[in-house]
Amino acid sequence: MISVALMGHGVVGSGVAEILYTHKQKLFAAIGEEIDLKHILDLREFPDSPFADRFTKDFNVIADDIEVRVVVETMGGLHPAYEFVKECLSRGKSVVTSNKELVAAYGAELLSIASQQSANFLFEASVGGGIPIIRPINQCLVANNVSEIAGILNGTTNFILTKMFYEGMGFDEALKLAQELGYAERNPEADVEGHDACRKICILASLAFGKHIYPDAVHTEGITKITAADVAYAESWGGVIKLIGSVKKLGRDCIDIIVAPMFVPSHSQLSSIDDVFNGIMVRGDCTGDVVFYGKGAGKLPTASAVVADVVDCIKHLKTRKYLSWADSDNSSVLPYEQSVRAMYVRGVADDAAAAYDEAKAVFGEIHRLSRENAPQGELAFITEPMEFRCFEKRLAEVKSLKAESVIRIGDL
Amino acid sequence: MISVALMGHGVVGSGVAEILYTHKQKLFAAIGEEIDLKHILDLREFPDSPFADRFTKDFNVIADDIEVRVVVETMGGLHPAYEFVKECLSRGKSVVTSNKELVAAYGAELLSIASQQSANFLFEASVGGGIPIIRPINQCLVANNVSEIAGILNGTTNFILTKMFYEGMGFDEALKLAQELGYAERNPEADVEGHDACRKICILASLAFGKHIYPDAVHTEGITKITAADVAYAESWGGVIKLIGSVKKLGRDCIDIIVAPMFVPSHSQLSSIDDVFNGIMVRGDCTGDVVFYGKGAGKLPTASAVVADVVDCIKHLKTRKYLSWADSDNSSVLPYEQSVRAMYVRGVADDAAAAYDEAKAVFGEIHRLSRENAPQGELAFITEPMEFRCFEKRLAEVKSLKAESVIRIGDL
Repeated sequence: MISVALMGHGVVGSGVAEILYTHKQKLFAAIGEEIDLKHILDLREFPDSPFADRFTKDFNVIADDIEVRVVVETMGGLHPAYEFVKECLSRGKSVVTSNKELVAAYGAELLSIASQQSANFLFEASVGGGIPIIRPINQCLVANNVSEIAGILNGTTNFILTKMFYEGMGFDEALKLAQELGYAERNPEADVEGHDACRKICILASLAFGKHIYPDAVHTEGITKITAADVAYAESWGGVIKLIGSVKKLGRDCIDIIVAPMFVPSHSQLSSIDDVFNGIMVRGDCTGDVVFYGKGAGKLPTASAVVADVVDCIKHLKTRKYLSWADSDNSSVLPYEQSVRAMYVRGVADDAAAAYDEAKAVFGEIHRLSRENAPQGELAFITEPMEFRCFEKRLAEVKSLKAESVIRIGDL
Repeated sequence: MISVALMGHGVVGSGVAEILYTHKQKLFAAIGEEIDLKHILDLREFPDSPFADRFTKDFNVIADDIEVRVVVETMGGLHPAYEFVKECLSRGKSVVTSNKELVAAYGAELLSIASQQSANFLFEASVGGGIPIIRPINQCLVANNVSEIAGILNGTTNFILTKMFYEGMGFDEALKLAQELGYAERNPEADVEGHDACRKICILASLAFGKHIYPDAVHTEGITKITAADVAYAESWGGVIKLIGSVKKLGRDCIDIIVAPMFVPSHSQLSSIDDVFNGIMVRGDCTGDVVFYGKGAGKLPTASAVVADVVDCIKHLKTRKYLSWADSDNSSVLPYEQSVRAMYVRGVADDAAAAYDEAKAVFGEIHRLSRENAPQGELAFITEPMEFRCFEKRLAEVKSLKAESVIRIGDL
């Protein structure tokens, strides 16, 4: 019997407890031993839980229990999750977490402590919910040099963009629906401003490239400024708008990483990932493109990924999983102004035809887009790929056009 | 330094040698030790290989070398691959293979020998080429009860069906193109008759349900009878035709497994998997649907999956990976005549309207399909879901219709 402790009995944590209870037999068959959920740390009471007698409000009950070999952290937030996880690892306990904020902020340090203690620190559930992605990148694609990862990493924004695309909703209306359905929080900022997606692409980038990339080094744009007109232009261009987290390796010590809405061509596998689903493309030099698709959030999908990590920890109580990356000062991150992409521009002018001619004179080759019922004076076009700083400078030179929207073209 | 041997320097085997050579540094970083490719078994000579001095024609050089801890089998075919793998495992060496025929025929026995010898027998590359699928099912989804797996498991047939769908080619023309491009072999039977897909779905079924399912127990249909007319009707229905390997768990000891062309609705993630790509959907009770997409074949994608298994074996020289299934007598396989699906029928009649009325009288509710330029007397329709034996009996009762094509409707 292996003793496990759980910190945080919220949505994901209660799902972990539920799966440990309902899937007991399957887990026993996989491990050859029984998992004993010995302690659950939560300030609340859960008298109806089958583990009602296991609750504690005192973290030290877990930290001091030498029988507890694996601790699950599903509290969320940075504090006290960070302090608790650090203490557990320092005492040689393996830790499994679903907390992307924690991994994105302190991953390098916590992995390092785990390594010193011959313990494991696993976080499959922190990216893509129930979609296997951390282990596939770390194990299955180990014989590849990964050159790029791009993904739809946030289900809330993908739901909103899907409603805007297929049902013609505006952003506010789609957000309201997402909130009513429980897909968006009352304060939706972390989702709609791209912060959640940013943490996830940072974790994937750190894993694939071996150096911790901190979220504050990553240029992050949300979807709040996307309009129905942009969605219509994306469709006429031959694609959709998705919030993409992308990281590309440009050289030995230079990566291009960004979170932003992008035009995604309809031939890309990512274009057909709709509603609350997530999809992640990993480009390896041997495999080519591999895409992982599924539910990126939710109680049981996320909890099942946590439990899979618990199983892996139990199987590796004596040997360490080789999952780690070095700390870094973010110096390998390319300034986003130097990132090269084709750009979509939508704006208004007194005379759209004259503005088009001016834009063409400034940008060189551009591809004009059209849509039904475009108001008088509206102009939309796609530029050739160029550095973002160069794009911004040129756009300012197109004096007759008042730009209202600027969106990157994803080369996916 | 860890000594590894390779048996078979063909397409995949030479790819394994290439990756061990070109990705040496990355592999060293992952393992912490160097991999020494000590012996390569092949009857041919490869003087230009960086491993030219490692070739041998004598299997016993590998079997007798106690330094060799991991053996890669990329010979293909059943014999002598089976005898060699068995001998290596019996001597406590771990074995990695890409040979789906071998795993589908002898997996249970070889896993059992590996277990007795505390060695590992891994075969990620046997299904889905470079797409991670075996390890995700076995590890990442361990906290799920898998109820269904369905996939496009053969790139050759998917290429042919894609050309038939998007470019209006006939089967023969598309096959010829596939052969010219090197996607199909001169004798394409194993691909186009579904045998290759059958071996793969057997491996996935055995893994997910814990009992060896042998290919001869699985009803298998190929794509040679699919016509342009069928493709057009699938489009008018709202989908595409794909060769699907499918396995569903119906009860504690009953699975419904089949390989056959199926109508796949366009809202399914599998419908947009085109050309030589593979895609596999795994339905778990916690995760919901998870889909894996990528190149299902080819030298480097497949070889990179083999090398990832080699790395895993090296990391687990002392501990065993828990990957195994029991042998079985196929008694849990539902007879395909009892499998329930909606069916597509295309046929000809002297009077299509009268035949439609007769079909409706026999089948009850049916959904008639139309296509452009359908010849006089052609009738196509979709039935409600029913057992296949019931469908066949009823179809024979529609006397005024000469059925020319019958295809299952995938509930994907």
